[in-house]
Amino acid sequence: MDDRQLLESIRDLIGRTETSDDCAAFPLDNGKKILVSTTDMLHETTDFPKGMTEWQMGWMSVAVSLSDVASCGAQPTQILVAAGLDRAERLKPIMEGAVACAKACDAKIAGGDIDSHTELTIVTTAFGVVDKEYYCTRSGAQPGDLVCVTGRPGAAQAGLDGYSGYWENLVMPKPQVFTGQRIAHSGATAMMDVSDGLAISLYDMSEASGVGFDLRENHLPLLPIADAKRYFLYGGGDYGLLFTIPQEKFVKMDVPVSVIGEVVEGDGVRMGDEQVEKRGYAHHID
Amino acid sequence: MDDRQLLESIRDLIGRTETSDDCAAFPLDNGKKILVSTTDMLHETTDFPKGMTEWQMGWMSVAVSLSDVASCGAQPTQILVAAGLDRAERLKPIMEGAVACAKACDAKIAGGDIDSHTELTIVTTAFGVVDKEYYCTRSGAQPGDLVCVTGRPGAAQAGLDGYSGYWENLVMPKPQVFTGQRIAHSGATAMMDVSDGLAISLYDMSEASGVGFDLRENHLPLLPIADAKRYFLYGGGDYGLLFTIPQEKFVKMDVPVSVIGEVVEGDGVRMGDEQVEKRGYAHHID
Repeated sequence: MDDRQLLESIRDLIGRTETSDDCAAFPLDNGKKILVSTTDMLHETTDFPKGMTEWQMGWMSVAVSLSDVASCGAQPTQILVAAGLDRAERLKPIMEGAVACAKACDAKIAGGDIDSHTELTIVTTAFGVVDKEYYCTRSGAQPGDLVCVTGRPGAAQAGLDGYSGYWENLVMPKPQVFTGQRIAHSGATAMMDVSDGLAISLYDMSEASGVGFDLRENHLPLLPIADAKRYFLYGGGDYGLLFTIPQEKFVKMDVPVSVIGEVVEGDGVRMGDEQVEKRGYAHHID
Repeated sequence: MDDRQLLESIRDLIGRTETSDDCAAFPLDNGKKILVSTTDMLHETTDFPKGMTEWQMGWMSVAVSLSDVASCGAQPTQILVAAGLDRAERLKPIMEGAVACAKACDAKIAGGDIDSHTELTIVTTAFGVVDKEYYCTRSGAQPGDLVCVTGRPGAAQAGLDGYSGYWENLVMPKPQVFTGQRIAHSGATAMMDVSDGLAISLYDMSEASGVGFDLRENHLPLLPIADAKRYFLYGGGDYGLLFTIPQEKFVKMDVPVSVIGEVVEGDGVRMGDEQVEKRGYAHHID
């Protein structure tokens, strides 16, 4: 069973809204603002490729949570870090990397928990605040909207597979915090990050919004490597943003993004005549 | 090195305030309210005694974080649960216990993360909101204040050591959420929970407040077991609240608490002529 199927098994217990977006939402200031929050567990054997430094592990741990905050269009405020350590001396460089990533996004490490653990395990929780009118979720994409991404999906996977020029994309993902806010202010109708891979993210957004996506094969920001389209669609570990936006609002945007298709009525994700496979990166749990 | 020493090693990096209280604080509504947040990592070999059910593990995981929220005088709002599972089928009963504990405190599981892990690892993050005037921390105790606790510190440790009548104190701790708010509204000057043991908590509060504590040996709510004083002072795993309050405010309180001593000038923790040992439960990290 993978983590998506497991999540399905507790949907009725926790609630459908609570298990649908990357962030939880809580109204502030009489509903004028929204506090978003998100938590992510990373551990050594599954999430930290061999060759990463502790500093990079700390950076990455914070980055994955800030990316979820970014995908709501929110400004991150505080981060909590729970560190389960197999060796005590790893804490300091991990926290230095964590602080560096938080600072780069104008956020702050505000607390945490320290524990011993057989396997290095880092759980970050990030909060952010966004004006209600700019709050983005996975639902809201409308037929006619353009489908866009930031960055170059597939780069982290390429780094993992030995393309050394993309190693940094893998181990030091840059959460798109400021870009996310610009996108939200420009009028995006739906947004999420592509950390599990672009194809599965498109399916998640398509299902949450009740629409289909038609991708334009000639417009994809592919990497100059073999099998580039496969990396683009199915590679995981990138923390770019996927969003939809009406055409008239898109033309006024001033952040660098790539248009990769458009929202259509119906469901599913197509590229030309082909159906895009519904698969991506998923944790497998026995 | 234990977790307290490790925390000391990153104090300069993270900040002294950020590493001093159980909860992080963030101002809301132009500073009229405070959002508190806290995160706790529990895992099977260290934190879940043999014989606990998954349901109880879920309950306890939420309870430890809600206890920190309670110690600020705050009403918990949302909880995030990151679950690292060694076996997929454990998720559902864990989440049922988590939901039950959240509901018992008028809070809500708002999201989380699911991961596979070699060892069952549960990280809970809880938020709460409190009016600024009632917000309690470990600092603020004033000479002349009474020192009080809720419940019977030592009961969880007794349960762990085979006193079966106290097993439930160990595996289903009750976060003192409503009592915590009543205490805060009554005018407590400092508050924290005693999860690491009463003695070490007294020292933590004494250092944060810059005062000493004199305990009254004849007033302690000891358990009717051998070595009761040792259990009372040094047992861990209870989630009662320790707080200080001026005498004139204490007399108007209507929640059941025990007065165990008073705040004095100076430092340290004494009982009669004896110094109380500065020790308690601590995670040891190699």
